[in-house]
Amino acid sequence: MNHAEGMLVKDALKNKTILVTGGGTGLGKSMAACFLSLGANVVISSRKLSVLEATAEELRKSSGRSILPLACDIRDYGQVKGMFDAATSHFGQVHAVVNNAAANFISPTERLSANAFHTILDIVLKGTANVTLVAGKRWIDEKTGGNFLSVVTTYAFTGSGYVVPSAAAKAGVLAMTRSLAVEWAPYQIRSNAIAPGPFPTEGALERLLPGELADKFDPAKRVPLGRVGKHHELANLAAYLLSDFSAFINGEVITIDGGEWLLGAGEFNDLRALEKTWWDRMEAARKNK
Amino acid sequence: MNHAEGMLVKDALKNKTILVTGGGTGLGKSMAACFLSLGANVVISSRKLSVLEATAEELRKSSGRSILPLACDIRDYGQVKGMFDAATSHFGQVHAVVNNAAANFISPTERLSANAFHTILDIVLKGTANVTLVAGKRWIDEKTGGNFLSVVTTYAFTGSGYVVPSAAAKAGVLAMTRSLAVEWAPYQIRSNAIAPGPFPTEGALERLLPGELADKFDPAKRVPLGRVGKHHELANLAAYLLSDFSAFINGEVITIDGGEWLLGAGEFNDLRALEKTWWDRMEAARKNK
Amino acid sequence: MNHAEGMLVKDALKNKTILVTGGGTGLGKSMAACFLSLGANVVISSRKLSVLEATAEELRKSSGRSILPLACDIRDYGQVKGMFDAATSHFGQVHAVVNNAAANFISPTERLSANAFHTILDIVLKGTANVTLVAGKRWIDEKTGGNFLSVVTTYAFTGSGYVVPSAAAKAGVLAMTRSLAVEWAPYQIRSNAIAPGPFPTEGALERLLPGELADKFDPAKRVPLGRVGKHHELANLAAYLLSDFSAFINGEVITIDGGEWLLGAGEFNDLRALEKTWWDRMEAARKNK
Amino acid sequence: MNHAEGMLVKDALKNKTILVTGGGTGLGKSMAACFLSLGANVVISSRKLSVLEATAEELRKSSGRSILPLACDIRDYGQVKGMFDAATSHFGQVHAVVNNAAANFISPTERLSANAFHTILDIVLKGTANVTLVAGKRWIDEKTGGNFLSVVTTYAFTGSGYVVPSAAAKAGVLAMTRSLAVEWAPYQIRSNAIAPGPFPTEGALERLLPGELADKFDPAKRVPLGRVGKHHELANLAAYLLSDFSAFINGEVITIDGGEWLLGAGEFNDLRALEKTWWDRMEAARKNK
Repeated sequence: MNHAEGMLVKDALKNKTILVTGGGTGLGKSMAACFLSLGANVVISSRKLSVLEATAEELRKSSGRSILPLACDIRDYGQVKGMFDAATSHFGQVHAVVNNAAANFISPTERLSANAFHTILDIVLKGTANVTLVAGKRWIDEKTGGNFLSVVTTYAFTGSGYVVPSAAAKAGVLAMTRSLAVEWAPYQIRSNAIAPGPFPTEGALERLLPGELADKFDPAKRVPLGRVGKHHELANLAAYLLSDFSAFINGEVITIDGGEWLLGAGEFNDLRALEKTWWDRMEAARKNK
Repeated sequence: MNHAEGMLVKDALKNKTILVTGGGTGLGKSMAACFLSLGANVVISSRKLSVLEATAEELRKSSGRSILPLACDIRDYGQVKGMFDAATSHFGQVHAVVNNAAANFISPTERLSANAFHTILDIVLKGTANVTLVAGKRWIDEKTGGNFLSVVTTYAFTGSGYVVPSAAAKAGVLAMTRSLAVEWAPYQIRSNAIAPGPFPTEGALERLLPGELADKFDPAKRVPLGRVGKHHELANLAAYLLSDFSAFINGEVITIDGGEWLLGAGEFNDLRALEKTWWDRMEAARKNK
Repeated sequence: MNHAEGMLVKDALKNKTILVTGGGTGLGKSMAACFLSLGANVVISSRKLSVLEATAEELRKSSGRSILPLACDIRDYGQVKGMFDAATSHFGQVHAVVNNAAANFISPTERLSANAFHTILDIVLKGTANVTLVAGKRWIDEKTGGNFLSVVTTYAFTGSGYVVPSAAAKAGVLAMTRSLAVEWAPYQIRSNAIAPGPFPTEGALERLLPGELADKFDPAKRVPLGRVGKHHELANLAAYLLSDFSAFINGEVITIDGGEWLLGAGEFNDLRALEKTWWDRMEAARKNK
Repeated sequence: MNHAEGMLVKDALKNKTILVTGGGTGLGKSMAACFLSLGANVVISSRKLSVLEATAEELRKSSGRSILPLACDIRDYGQVKGMFDAATSHFGQVHAVVNNAAANFISPTERLSANAFHTILDIVLKGTANVTLVAGKRWIDEKTGGNFLSVVTTYAFTGSGYVVPSAAAKAGVLAMTRSLAVEWAPYQIRSNAIAPGPFPTEGALERLLPGELADKFDPAKRVPLGRVGKHHELANLAAYLLSDFSAFINGEVITIDGGEWLLGAGEFNDLRALEKTWWDRMEAARKNK
């Protein structure tokens, strides 16, 4: 079985229109491709129309399906409303939103200006709040139900140094997701999240960690399974959470990281560096006591 | 689309042999049926051979596939070894284990004898440890890799009154699962868990909460989505976690409860009982300030 | 022993200058009073100078100690810098910061304007980030070490409906706290948080939930211990976390809520409503099986 | 101020009798000494009477207070009852229990026999359940209220390889603690836990990790604050949780580990290894874009 091919049965997302913010590149693009292959209509948005149009063209060709690129700076509530209106009038309805747009600086926090810190908060948290408000208000007004999926990070719950504005903003997104999972459930709106570990996308880590550093901090070494994630693995999980097969999952954040965060968190996990002979000796010592 | 039908593509579990403890009834039986429909070989075990055989016969007929019932008291390490040997010799190899066997008393804790408390710990935690040790040792010896899936509860992390031995034991199972997700990952053994909310099985709640009480404590009312779970929803999730499509999910516990535990946990969620007119008044009051 | 009197030994905070945002009223004021009684110098800030000055006057009289009121809108980085400079030049150094300023709307989320949502995010999260950046940059520059204490909420981790902007913002504050606990520890800066349950302050709940509702949603009923918190209980905990007695606690959030959030979270906790005779009957039924 | 001296005001535990399991050595002994200094009566128990008696003698001399050593294998419910009866008849009442007794193997899990695994579960989890049942039943019968404090581990929530039976058992203890915090609160019984990071006790780590390994895996290096914990730091926290000053803390587990578990958990925390010049270069690169 080729696991890079679709995981869900044919047409699992048929007749669903899914809006993916940050959908022009990286994981957003990979998710969009997966959703198309399962019969969905897809709207991709980001600030750069030229990138979106190129991606839309490429995905149209590979899938033979309709995809709508819409430029939008999600920090601006008016633009978000416009985007949602355009998507709705093109496809008749938007059934699901993937809050995937993000921004990040890798930097010691004391080196960040207040302005830089605010920019990340605005894009990631305020932007996601804008999209969520626009979609939620409409879904409630029109009694259609809906489905939110937010892409957060494993450090949304534990925090992480060197990416602090992103940690704060993603934690905010996660709390919003869990809050609305309860509050908006009576309107048949589900809300879930995915917390991905390392899923490198062409050049992303390199842009953040240039040159030798990208080697030195090879994320695969931090993962118990010894490898990074593959885009279709995350896309399949997202498709599951957007499909009606997961209809009873609500308010949940699913970590897909090969066990990365647990490896670091567990107090004695460093002992994996010990060689077999050490354990042999310790075992012998214990038995001789 | 009929969502009670299979969610994963055809043959998603082909050539996998999956051992389900507590597989004769309830959710264990539902999972077994789902795995068979995806091409797996299934072993079901519990203490009652007659129940197992009836279930095996029923599933054989509906699926047209091979299923092996094996009686085993998992508290006894010797019996567990015997069961694993029998399963291996029948199917050639066991690829995955679903730790699903459980026991519970619903009771104020001070009414439990030490003996009753210990019995739950022994079945749920010691029993699961036995199955895990037998399977893990063999998978490591034979370098085959493997896959653990433990069925826990949402109260494994938060605790819950009135089911305290079960809470303690399931929390232990969850910690074991997360620990081994890291420790045994280099052997290509994954470990994950599912935390189900209310998935009533014929008569289970009634046995625990007789008569009027079962009405009064209707679990659907505790769920934001307003309903309990359906067996195929949990079975589909389990099948996903046992399939290679989820190969990068490791050490994770996925809650499938419609948002139940979050509804109770969030400090202001009781306000859902407020009627619209109250909010109208409060909003007016705020604006007039 | 009078537990409303000081808990820590005399002078436990001597020679420490502690800045409390939102220090003019409520829990902020109670903490300020407690810190003064333990020998600290205290700076209180908020947007309303007249309120601050009245509080400062009152606390000066009761404690006989020095307290500095400083007006500051923490959303404005320049104002925060000015406040920190003024506090430092008055007391020589600021040793600790209590991020206590907050704002909240209790409302169904779909009734909030984007503007209202953003306001809460800006005060709670962006404001706290501003204070944290100003204090941290200076403590690192001057190699003095420091101590952050953030007041969050129990719904920072679980989320809660009807207070969604607050939930998102407080979750962001918590993630920032945990992130910097690690990143800034080498500079001898500790970072911790407190998650309080219901600690009513004169009129606060009434302002949020007018009239009959405040009765109907009596927070004491949600708490297993059957009562709300007392201000000195929270203040004592805060004093402990700011003192050097807690020097090895770092990155931690301590919940002080009488068990409130767990009561709602645990799946079977509703059974506390059952009367003794029910349990008698059930026990009898179990024994007769 | 000497922070190794008492933190709480004089007589903070006066008239309280506190039972500490595993009280003869290590952290148990340190807690006992702290409780005595605050005016408590203390009962220490473990399996080795000679060790207990030597400790009791030493603490009697240093504190001038009464301390009762009682041998007890907590795996045996009858022995636990006997211990509790003896303590009650000696001091009139037992007001609080510290569940501190533990056992551990550091070993790859596949090298453990089922028997070794069960032994840890029995001592840590079944033993704690026994003590909890005996104390709780009596406190409820006699309407006296009570206070439980369990010493767990940071890996009770995240799990950890190489100490899997301990992780499972401690997770069980934590879930029991949280469950009873809710269920038994109406009886004025509080339940809390402490999750300590590295608090080396004479020879403990060396016994577990002999020779060079103890150097190689120096726990101080895993702690953001760059050091291990001091016994009085943990003892002070325990005294706070047993005193009435913490009367509104219930169902909480307080981590005291200098930030250790968060350091490993946060995805980008490894970047603390980067030198300043790297950050200079990256910052320059960002600005030149």
